[in-house]
Amino acid sequence: MKGQTSLRLQVPTALRPALDDDRLARAAWSRLAEPGDAAAARLVSEVGAPLALEAVVTGRGPDRWRTRLADVDPAVDIAAVRAAGGRLVVPGDEEWPTGLDDLDRDTVGDRPLGAPFALWLRGPLHLSDTTARSAALVGSRAATGYGQHVASELATGLVDRGFTVVSGGAYGIDAAAHRSALAVGGASVAVLACGVDRTYPSGNAALLTRLAQEGVLVSEVPPGTTPTRWRFLERNRLIAALTRGTVVVEAAWRSGALSTADRATRLMRPVGAVPGPVTSAASSGCHRLLRDGGAVCVTSAEEVAELLGDLGVETLAPRPVERRPFDGLDREELRVAESLPRRGSSGLEQLARDAGLELPVVQSILGRLELAGLAERIDDGWRRGTPN
Amino acid sequence: MKGQTSLRLQVPTALRPALDDDRLARAAWSRLAEPGDAAAARLVSEVGAPLALEAVVTGRGPDRWRTRLADVDPAVDIAAVRAAGGRLVVPGDEEWPTGLDDLDRDTVGDRPLGAPFALWLRGPLHLSDTTARSAALVGSRAATGYGQHVASELATGLVDRGFTVVSGGAYGIDAAAHRSALAVGGASVAVLACGVDRTYPSGNAALLTRLAQEGVLVSEVPPGTTPTRWRFLERNRLIAALTRGTVVVEAAWRSGALSTADRATRLMRPVGAVPGPVTSAASSGCHRLLRDGGAVCVTSAEEVAELLGDLGVETLAPRPVERRPFDGLDREELRVAESLPRRGSSGLEQLARDAGLELPVVQSILGRLELAGLAERIDDGWRRGTPN
Repeated sequence: MKGQTSLRLQVPTALRPALDDDRLARAAWSRLAEPGDAAAARLVSEVGAPLALEAVVTGRGPDRWRTRLADVDPAVDIAAVRAAGGRLVVPGDEEWPTGLDDLDRDTVGDRPLGAPFALWLRGPLHLSDTTARSAALVGSRAATGYGQHVASELATGLVDRGFTVVSGGAYGIDAAAHRSALAVGGASVAVLACGVDRTYPSGNAALLTRLAQEGVLVSEVPPGTTPTRWRFLERNRLIAALTRGTVVVEAAWRSGALSTADRATRLMRPVGAVPGPVTSAASSGCHRLLRDGGAVCVTSAEEVAELLGDLGVETLAPRPVERRPFDGLDREELRVAESLPRRGSSGLEQLARDAGLELPVVQSILGRLELAGLAERIDDGWRRGTPN
Repeated sequence: MKGQTSLRLQVPTALRPALDDDRLARAAWSRLAEPGDAAAARLVSEVGAPLALEAVVTGRGPDRWRTRLADVDPAVDIAAVRAAGGRLVVPGDEEWPTGLDDLDRDTVGDRPLGAPFALWLRGPLHLSDTTARSAALVGSRAATGYGQHVASELATGLVDRGFTVVSGGAYGIDAAAHRSALAVGGASVAVLACGVDRTYPSGNAALLTRLAQEGVLVSEVPPGTTPTRWRFLERNRLIAALTRGTVVVEAAWRSGALSTADRATRLMRPVGAVPGPVTSAASSGCHRLLRDGGAVCVTSAEEVAELLGDLGVETLAPRPVERRPFDGLDREELRVAESLPRRGSSGLEQLARDAGLELPVVQSILGRLELAGLAERIDDGWRRGTPN
């Protein structure tokens, strides 16, 4: 008891409440460790966030967590997210999306990706409900007009089918997907690599503000945190885990969107890729995924919905096709139908020769073609009919 | 012997020599039966062309072959193809492509497609040699500028890699493929649905004439025969069987090119499809193949060559990519490199906090980054370096 008390005295004041409170401890961890720090995630998942925190404070655990100890004040971070109109969500909360738990399981051919300690949210939508039926639309920041058009079409079509559109809030494909979802009154979620109180990139400030008002912004790093390339990469595992599947709309050969596709595959979520002109470098990453079997080719919201296993609600409708006169004819019927002249007429024997079929066969086929309006008796012979 | 003689007397004069001559009998069969007549192909393959012909003449076998008996004169057909500068090739001839024999084997999930009885050729190239290393490039007649551009690029690139370009001599993709192959001095083969003495479609007359002068025209129907839809469909199995594999460059949802892909699959030949904009109906057939697993996504001649198993001669070169400064860094190195300020400098402890790593780790990483030119000592701290 005495040792316990003296230990407590070594603990920075700001951290003391966190040693008894899972929510505060998780908030602390979200500042202490970088996203995707597998050792931290494992420790927290094994002994719980408060005890894991205590281990760091008392000098156990890697030094890299200790270097940040002095900067951690979960109460301040929680106040900051509240000031921005946001909230903290931790495992066990009703709003915690259970799909994130997959991040703590072994992934395909590899170890766990590591679940986030907590999520910092900003926006009116209920994260768990809103992502239960959701699709990730991701792609290049340097998107082409084609890519943005397709992102927009897919987002709109997915909203029509009751899907939430999840993306990364970046320029290009991300922005087109969010914007189009919002434009048709759909739900949209942006998963950020920085704090949810920041508007990065600044050119998307209006869009991110609107998402904070009508959708929801999500981050695993606490308010005020700046984005780094590392955080962008790790953010991608959250996009993959929050959704039913990921669609890469347009991606160059080395686009970050491909890492989201990779994370989705490792989490056993379906991945789709939208093809584009092979002359466009902006689609080469999508084609790479299609070539190596990393993605299914998707060309419409309907196909995306099918990919995401949306079978109960709506199955893929047969594609409407132009009906052609000779549709449905079998091989021999086709041969007779093609042997009928458009002008003048042919006698039975001529038709049998032209079609290479026996007389009685031709006779019986002609009867069927006549019923279908494809053959017409004229004088002593037959000619091609014009069906309505 | 007496019966034999009286039988011979019933035989039309034009057919008598064919009863003792495989070449003439096969020429006769190529007029007697429609392409892809499975029963005829089976009969000929089982008892040989002369005996099969005798069976028809003596009233055995289906009547549909008899209806054409009076029109058959193989000597006339052979004279006609010679007059057009062409020749007849039959199984056993050195020029007969052995790949066609696959058509008499069971195909994937189905019965044999049926080998042709004979081939009528026109053009200087040796068919068997020239198709030993060949690719089929097929696609829509109503091709877009994009499709024609890609067909042209692929044809040129395949010629560069020593491939013969095989197609159907039609408008659109076919014509672009043939033309581009010829333009760079490559070998090209057109497989027609009409006699090789005809130029169909007439708009391709100059191209077909050039193919007859520098490449080779191929048909299983005798000279003078008109093309029908039926013959186009059956022609596709020859394109599939003559080549190492088939690439669909551009195809609408119901393009005939898809039937060539289907035949290739049934013959266990690889099939590739070139993606295009999802906004282009002209590519929807290619996307359909990619979606249902019927084709591999190909975007360049190099990828086509790889698809066709061209491993001995040249394997897929690694794609040249822009080298980026942080390439090759591991996860922790990346975090330190990103923590280095571009202006001013950071001390060791600051860097350890920013990167979320232990001091000694940061120190050792900084040494490595400095060697790589990615970190620079300045005053008492470090900043980002600019590698050459």
